[in-house]
Amino acid sequence: MSKGLLIVLSAPSGSGKSTVREALMKKADFAYSVSATTRAPREGEKDGVDYWFVTREQFEEKIRNGEMLEYTTYNGNYYGTPLDAAMRVVESGRNLILEIEVEGAMNVKRLYPEAILIMLLPPSFSEQERRLRGRGTESEDVIRGRLDRTYEEMNYYPNYDYVVYNNAVEACVEDMLSIIHAEQWAVKRHPEIPTSYFET
Amino acid sequence: MSKGLLIVLSAPSGSGKSTVREALMKKADFAYSVSATTRAPREGEKDGVDYWFVTREQFEEKIRNGEMLEYTTYNGNYYGTPLDAAMRVVESGRNLILEIEVEGAMNVKRLYPEAILIMLLPPSFSEQERRLRGRGTESEDVIRGRLDRTYEEMNYYPNYDYVVYNNAVEACVEDMLSIIHAEQWAVKRHPEIPTSYFET
Repeated sequence: MSKGLLIVLSAPSGSGKSTVREALMKKADFAYSVSATTRAPREGEKDGVDYWFVTREQFEEKIRNGEMLEYTTYNGNYYGTPLDAAMRVVESGRNLILEIEVEGAMNVKRLYPEAILIMLLPPSFSEQERRLRGRGTESEDVIRGRLDRTYEEMNYYPNYDYVVYNNAVEACVEDMLSIIHAEQWAVKRHPEIPTSYFET
Repeated sequence: MSKGLLIVLSAPSGSGKSTVREALMKKADFAYSVSATTRAPREGEKDGVDYWFVTREQFEEKIRNGEMLEYTTYNGNYYGTPLDAAMRVVESGRNLILEIEVEGAMNVKRLYPEAILIMLLPPSFSEQERRLRGRGTESEDVIRGRLDRTYEEMNYYPNYDYVVYNNAVEACVEDMLSIIHAEQWAVKRHPEIPTSYFET
């Protein structure tokens, strides 16, 4: 059986990433990898189902040992994807998609070079600005911050494998499905013709 | 404008290559590259339309100078794809598909590393044998020769970019369309985000 693909999707804010990911999930079968966190379990949350609940010391040790594919902090707690959990998914033959920032994506590529990095971009920078302002919910400072951040993110572009422009959600999903489909038949993922091919 | 893709399709005999290529041509727009030949023009054939008609000396000089992407001999005449003709096609933004043997494919990759090499295989070796025998038109010696040749061709497999198994023509065409679609968005083909992206 072939291994599943580990897809990393990064996108600046205003690119429509969540909409694209949701539309993609409806069309393709992706597995879900349980994240690890240092925050306390809420009522009813189960370890290994909702999250892997770990201590701050355990989480930081995993980071030091290269056992976290990617992680972030939020409200003083760590959240991240343990390498072993992601590997169990791909080894089982299922595809996994991680929606992460550019810095995290570089970390994934370093720890798992077979990962496929896709950068999703709005149709243009001015369209991105229009979309961000169109929300009407954020201050000028926040919008400028997001646009400045986009320039930073663009520096990582050459390290990605594919670029997809979000002109229209459906076309964008088709692009991503083609990438996934094609990568499944890349010779680098099947270095040899299976012996079963020659069996009579 | 983006360059077109140069696709090289190789397949052992009995893989259904011609059927797949014809079905693919109906679904995707491929340009046609005029071949060069040393055979004499037949009545009504035009230079640069049907073939580029060249002398044996001219053809051999092009081979020596690395100006033939690939070539073969048939009935004592050379036939081949001039590098410049193929480059004009891809520079114009159109995709080009060459259906060639493994040795020729290696030559294409050497002269034009951006080429995408696809190996089309029958579903299995025994199915290939069944198909070859099913034709009922060839002697046992010819069939054995074709099967032995297949083992030789398989040695080139690791140099290909993609493998497609021809279990069913339609699925096979979909695989190839996905490969073409995905490769068009490979970052290696678009090393920079176009400046037009940032224009307001």
